[in-house]
Amino acid sequence: MSLKEQLLGRVAEAPAHSGNKVTVVGVGQVGMACAFSILTQNVASEVALVDVVADKLKGEMLDLQHGSVFMRNARVLASTDYAVSANSRLCIVTAGARQKDGESRLDLVQRNTDIFKGIIPQLVKHSPDCILLIVSNPVDVMTYVAWKLSGFPKHRVIGSGTNLDSSRFRVLMSQRLNVAPSSVHGWIIGEHGDSSVPVWSGVNVAGVRLRELNPSLGAAEDKENWAEVHKQVVQSAYEVIRLKGYTSWAIGLSVATLTEAVLRNGGQVHAVSTVVQGYHGIDKEVFLSLPCVLSESGVSHIVKQPLTDEETAQLKRSADIMHEVQTRLKM
Amino acid sequence: MSLKEQLLGRVAEAPAHSGNKVTVVGVGQVGMACAFSILTQNVASEVALVDVVADKLKGEMLDLQHGSVFMRNARVLASTDYAVSANSRLCIVTAGARQKDGESRLDLVQRNTDIFKGIIPQLVKHSPDCILLIVSNPVDVMTYVAWKLSGFPKHRVIGSGTNLDSSRFRVLMSQRLNVAPSSVHGWIIGEHGDSSVPVWSGVNVAGVRLRELNPSLGAAEDKENWAEVHKQVVQSAYEVIRLKGYTSWAIGLSVATLTEAVLRNGGQVHAVSTVVQGYHGIDKEVFLSLPCVLSESGVSHIVKQPLTDEETAQLKRSADIMHEVQTRLKM
Amino acid sequence: MSLKEQLLGRVAEAPAHSGNKVTVVGVGQVGMACAFSILTQNVASEVALVDVVADKLKGEMLDLQHGSVFMRNARVLASTDYAVSANSRLCIVTAGARQKDGESRLDLVQRNTDIFKGIIPQLVKHSPDCILLIVSNPVDVMTYVAWKLSGFPKHRVIGSGTNLDSSRFRVLMSQRLNVAPSSVHGWIIGEHGDSSVPVWSGVNVAGVRLRELNPSLGAAEDKENWAEVHKQVVQSAYEVIRLKGYTSWAIGLSVATLTEAVLRNGGQVHAVSTVVQGYHGIDKEVFLSLPCVLSESGVSHIVKQPLTDEETAQLKRSADIMHEVQTRLKM
Amino acid sequence: MSLKEQLLGRVAEAPAHSGNKVTVVGVGQVGMACAFSILTQNVASEVALVDVVADKLKGEMLDLQHGSVFMRNARVLASTDYAVSANSRLCIVTAGARQKDGESRLDLVQRNTDIFKGIIPQLVKHSPDCILLIVSNPVDVMTYVAWKLSGFPKHRVIGSGTNLDSSRFRVLMSQRLNVAPSSVHGWIIGEHGDSSVPVWSGVNVAGVRLRELNPSLGAAEDKENWAEVHKQVVQSAYEVIRLKGYTSWAIGLSVATLTEAVLRNGGQVHAVSTVVQGYHGIDKEVFLSLPCVLSESGVSHIVKQPLTDEETAQLKRSADIMHEVQTRLKM
Repeated sequence: MSLKEQLLGRVAEAPAHSGNKVTVVGVGQVGMACAFSILTQNVASEVALVDVVADKLKGEMLDLQHGSVFMRNARVLASTDYAVSANSRLCIVTAGARQKDGESRLDLVQRNTDIFKGIIPQLVKHSPDCILLIVSNPVDVMTYVAWKLSGFPKHRVIGSGTNLDSSRFRVLMSQRLNVAPSSVHGWIIGEHGDSSVPVWSGVNVAGVRLRELNPSLGAAEDKENWAEVHKQVVQSAYEVIRLKGYTSWAIGLSVATLTEAVLRNGGQVHAVSTVVQGYHGIDKEVFLSLPCVLSESGVSHIVKQPLTDEETAQLKRSADIMHEVQTRLKM
Repeated sequence: MSLKEQLLGRVAEAPAHSGNKVTVVGVGQVGMACAFSILTQNVASEVALVDVVADKLKGEMLDLQHGSVFMRNARVLASTDYAVSANSRLCIVTAGARQKDGESRLDLVQRNTDIFKGIIPQLVKHSPDCILLIVSNPVDVMTYVAWKLSGFPKHRVIGSGTNLDSSRFRVLMSQRLNVAPSSVHGWIIGEHGDSSVPVWSGVNVAGVRLRELNPSLGAAEDKENWAEVHKQVVQSAYEVIRLKGYTSWAIGLSVATLTEAVLRNGGQVHAVSTVVQGYHGIDKEVFLSLPCVLSESGVSHIVKQPLTDEETAQLKRSADIMHEVQTRLKM
Repeated sequence: MSLKEQLLGRVAEAPAHSGNKVTVVGVGQVGMACAFSILTQNVASEVALVDVVADKLKGEMLDLQHGSVFMRNARVLASTDYAVSANSRLCIVTAGARQKDGESRLDLVQRNTDIFKGIIPQLVKHSPDCILLIVSNPVDVMTYVAWKLSGFPKHRVIGSGTNLDSSRFRVLMSQRLNVAPSSVHGWIIGEHGDSSVPVWSGVNVAGVRLRELNPSLGAAEDKENWAEVHKQVVQSAYEVIRLKGYTSWAIGLSVATLTEAVLRNGGQVHAVSTVVQGYHGIDKEVFLSLPCVLSESGVSHIVKQPLTDEETAQLKRSADIMHEVQTRLKM
Repeated sequence: MSLKEQLLGRVAEAPAHSGNKVTVVGVGQVGMACAFSILTQNVASEVALVDVVADKLKGEMLDLQHGSVFMRNARVLASTDYAVSANSRLCIVTAGARQKDGESRLDLVQRNTDIFKGIIPQLVKHSPDCILLIVSNPVDVMTYVAWKLSGFPKHRVIGSGTNLDSSRFRVLMSQRLNVAPSSVHGWIIGEHGDSSVPVWSGVNVAGVRLRELNPSLGAAEDKENWAEVHKQVVQSAYEVIRLKGYTSWAIGLSVATLTEAVLRNGGQVHAVSTVVQGYHGIDKEVFLSLPCVLSESGVSHIVKQPLTDEETAQLKRSADIMHEVQTRLKM
């Protein structure tokens, strides 16, 4: 009799997968920061990793497993075969190519679309009821691509969108005010990245709208130049990449928060990329970030913010650009 | 248009219940300590409370709901109707009568059995795939009763058993040694309460068996009288009841830990009440506590501890008493 | 050589007290809910309990200690002697008499003041650098009393105030909107209890002011009658007391959150009772709740909300009543 | 008046540093995994980073700050100037050179000693009462170097040692037994790395010594070849480095756990590198890992494990090698 048989009497098999399994596709810096944030913040007790680079993938799996005793015995699986992702409640996609020198944006999107053709149908096959959370850039278009490839209803495909931009916005304002980031409220919507839209009218501390104190908040004539804060948000990713080579921790934490919001089914509001057709006068089937109510079914509601004409115009411009790119994509 | 409709655009319905729902039957001090521990330790994001006393039940629900913003938006439901428990992954039963003056143990068990006839079939009806975790006393017999009434396979009905006795054992030894309770390992098995069995051979710190340092550990001739520690464990419940009127926090925390072990599916070992037939020479179909591997399927394995003849004899005596009581029960 | 000496070689003494010790005075339902929330939410690793009822006190201490292995080995001390509170970073006072039938409010305050004369100087003596967090009712006056008795600068004496009212406000609005409580923002200020003031102008979801969608929000002419939500907040404590006999969980969680805000020194904003002289035209030295920035030094800043004339008038009325009571107190 | 002055009335200054500040020196993969584990597991609310590479350092700081709203508003500071580390309760050192091709071990240690000369006195200067936790390799010698450079009493200088080796040991055994890693107990002591010593006699599940079931556990004649598990532990670091280029997550989690053990002052036992003179017959002033009781004062006690002659001999061999290296070092 083996030691194991001597030690343990069998009563029943443990289920192969826990009820809160999460899959992360892509084990680069972003994917690993997502997985590690999810595990250390106790968002899920089981994480499956998938990547095409078998060695790196196994190394990351082992490194996480070696620390599992410090993470409440979380289970970490990994394989180049998508079967490892079976029965996930939520699948996070961080895989994707980086922009090459001289490469057009459209060419990059096409390359990533081709990569997604090998990923999304596999995830759908093994977890047909999951929520898809797309992180790969450019995230708004790639979320559209994932949606189309998945055949899922629109509420079950989410882009990480401007949840991170909004976080950076709050942090930078909190540093000016010397108040906790969680006590400074502000939302950035629209396209993740350069064309994002800060909704200055909603910025507040304890319900006090900063624009009531400073009517030119965010405008060109503001002597305190708060508009600079949004510029810094837009520059943030570039600056971090310049300084350390990539961004990882903040996007990992942002994704872990979105994952928790879905798995807990509690109705938290976050700015994520969703189908915005019918909102703010947008008539195209494109993904942009708006504040959304999250639940186990993904996006259950969209918050309808009153916007200025300029803010609306900027959203529409982004929508038009998205749509133009989408039209040219070979799916 | 209502304010809600003005504010929120509907995309999809959020699921009625989260995937990690837990039900607690009985909102006395024990039931509430269980529910509060589960919520504050983030074991589940949704807890349903059931009791027959509608006012008390609603009061506890409201009091928890009023604090939900401090508990990551946990959802708390309550009703005298078991429909509120639907789709729970785990149901905890703390309801039961207290021993009356002059009442025999058998009479108490019969009264609680009659109470369980109104509880268990209802839980089974609304959550046919759940795990049942029984806390009501005398817990070993009541877990047997729940098992029979449920028709569940034995691995899916668990008694909170000596997980708490083992915790008290570790705490009391840790106070003697001035080391953290989690770093002092010791197991109490058998019947929850007066006849519990401390397994002195396994007591260790950092793998150092205390019996190797003091061969009379736990025996009558021991000059340091470590056996006193087990006596204190047995007296603990009586002492706390004498001092504050009831026990609550420690049993609530113990149950929350067992709940987490099941929901996380991680294979943790805890001393819980399970069918011990076939172990340690017991041939009767009774529930007693042994170290068990817990998973989403409940008890997946039983750890086979080498016991002394005396320890085995005591387990058998407990089993005989259980069986005797069970034979006389009207189910 | 004792077993302990055989097992452990001494290198240095562990400090008698951890650097994040918290004391709770009063082990009634409120005090214990505070202590249990602090321990299970991992706000502090060491809690000292003080009360005059030795038996009840010891019973609560033992019950918590028995579960310490499930609370990351948290330490729990208790004594009727305030020496046990030595070196606390924060002391919470929940002790106090309940209103007797026919007793005037002033008489109650005087009785509680006499009780505080036995508590506050003792806490100050043993933890001269601590923050005092007062929970005993009527909380605004009692915080003033504690401040005077302590001789502390005003920033180091805080009343739990309307942090709980604000939480109930958010929860009740979240139930109307079906959005997470943490995503519905609203502040209740002023006197804790019947005369509290909801600041409707600041109520928002994702920065969208609900009053922009419904200009009569909170007013008498509002067809959706949102003012009812504030009435429910005021009734909440009475209703919970009627249903279960007392309130405990929500106030415990509220106090744990304030405790964490202080110990983490992060600058979170909460509505707590502080000296409001100089704010909103109040010229008296009284305590009322306003949104405050919390840090290790207690209240570091007060948020200056723009208020309506009516809101300001109500604050002043509360201030006048406070002041009147304070003038008559025998300290 | 600035917007900030309009919004906030000043009551008192928040303290510059929280009472649970931790410093991490070195922002390579190991240092950042330590910092991120500490922040996401809520071990400390304030982390200061120090490194000589200003760009990388600032990039890591910004990336963490951008996510602070998802980490309970944790504060992250960074500077090339050690003043940023002032008033830390614990300082973690991960900085150090990697072994060059053809470089002798002694040459590497000398290079790292020279690096430590620029680090340790600076940490001591700004946080004279802190605990030093050394992670840089070879960790046992480098902890000795840090001790000598600091002038601290021996209990306040700790090496991360075999806490990670022990974790890997437990994980690998748990995979054989299909039980949670936290429920499989086993200790690896001695030198971190190739010469580490597994204490087979203490390996147990629920107090059941595996050697009682399989007397040849860990020995050459064992048919199940459990000794292979220790070989895998030794190979682990090499394998992870081969696969992903470095190790990070597991060491980060191990260090975060040690940090928490110190800050909580709870008396947890972990295998860490400490002065072993006087234990197991070692008469030299060297650092090796033994199970130690941790508290706010660092190592308060060492657990005296009964070892076999072979285990003792191996410890002594490691001690001799350490001592030889130390003798030749230019400090």
